[in-house]
Amino acid sequence: MVTSRSTAAARPGGASPRRRGPVLERAILEATLDQLGSVGWNGLTMEGVAVGAQTGKAAVYRRWPSKEDLVVEALRVGLPTLDDAPDRGSVREDLYELCLRVRDVMYSKPGFALRAVLHECDADAAERFHELIVTGVVEPSTRLFTAVLRRGITRGEVRPDAVDGLVLDVIPAMMMYRSKVYGSEWQDEEIADVIDRIMVPLVRV
Amino acid sequence: MVTSRSTAAARPGGASPRRRGPVLERAILEATLDQLGSVGWNGLTMEGVAVGAQTGKAAVYRRWPSKEDLVVEALRVGLPTLDDAPDRGSVREDLYELCLRVRDVMYSKPGFALRAVLHECDADAAERFHELIVTGVVEPSTRLFTAVLRRGITRGEVRPDAVDGLVLDVIPAMMMYRSKVYGSEWQDEEIADVIDRIMVPLVRV
Repeated sequence: MVTSRSTAAARPGGASPRRRGPVLERAILEATLDQLGSVGWNGLTMEGVAVGAQTGKAAVYRRWPSKEDLVVEALRVGLPTLDDAPDRGSVREDLYELCLRVRDVMYSKPGFALRAVLHECDADAAERFHELIVTGVVEPSTRLFTAVLRRGITRGEVRPDAVDGLVLDVIPAMMMYRSKVYGSEWQDEEIADVIDRIMVPLVRV
Repeated sequence: MVTSRSTAAARPGGASPRRRGPVLERAILEATLDQLGSVGWNGLTMEGVAVGAQTGKAAVYRRWPSKEDLVVEALRVGLPTLDDAPDRGSVREDLYELCLRVRDVMYSKPGFALRAVLHECDADAAERFHELIVTGVVEPSTRLFTAVLRRGITRGEVRPDAVDGLVLDVIPAMMMYRSKVYGSEWQDEEIADVIDRIMVPLVRV
């Protein structure tokens, strides 16, 4: 891959390098995120993506039959994943650390693109992107918050009935609300305040 | 007012009744809410409102120079007010009762129209409508929630540091989040769950 990129760089304005399979796919998905960043959902075209990826429109359509399919895939592949729950020995530290990671996912380039697309697209497409937020961010982070609370219960820090769907909604609800109403961008300090003034008092024994 | 309405009803297709000052203003604002309900923000015209209020366009423009001004006023005047905090002797009952009242404001005809307009209008108009939600709903309800918590502190039910801007954001945050993510319409039972499983554990001593 390094070779083919170097070759391309050595041929400014020349023919595109021959790439196949995963390498070409990554280039197309990368170009899709770039297009979303520069022209948004409404401005994005399959042709523009093909140009950005130095390939032909057919190579894009062969893999993704529609603009929705292409964008869903670019966002799904591009969104950073949330793998393990932090385990730093206290529920306060684990909640804080996990919130930072979720914030970083939502403020990554694909995270921004996902939210922008949701505002811009029509209702049918919105449903697929909404699902992407749920399966790509909400559900994985809920699993990890659950793991953090369960460890807190084992340590005797957290009340046993705190693993509760409503309690698990509080952090994402605060994130959405304060972004919309106050334009919050979730600096570390504000995250610490939500943990210390809301979540810890809410779940402690 | 009853007289002039009866007169109008008795003259189907006839000339509009002569109304002045507050009576005519109310008719125009009422017609504005009706138009928002039937054709939305983008479909609403000063002409359509004038027809609905059985008056001339000039009578509308004389009072409200733009569509934004007219709609802001119709929503401001139309939104039910939140006057007093409930005082039923327990923080749980007072929080529950107050949530029901806030829900009823947001689900009133002007409350629905306000939210629909926010989704439909452009960014400049959105700022004014957003401010209307803050001054018409968020701020008054925050004042009443504060009063409820203070009474709980006096009774010894609520911890003294629970009157906290972040704590006061939890209920509106949950309302917004669960509406958007789960399509919740805030039935009484769900409100009771948020009070019993989130707010009471969060504020109790």
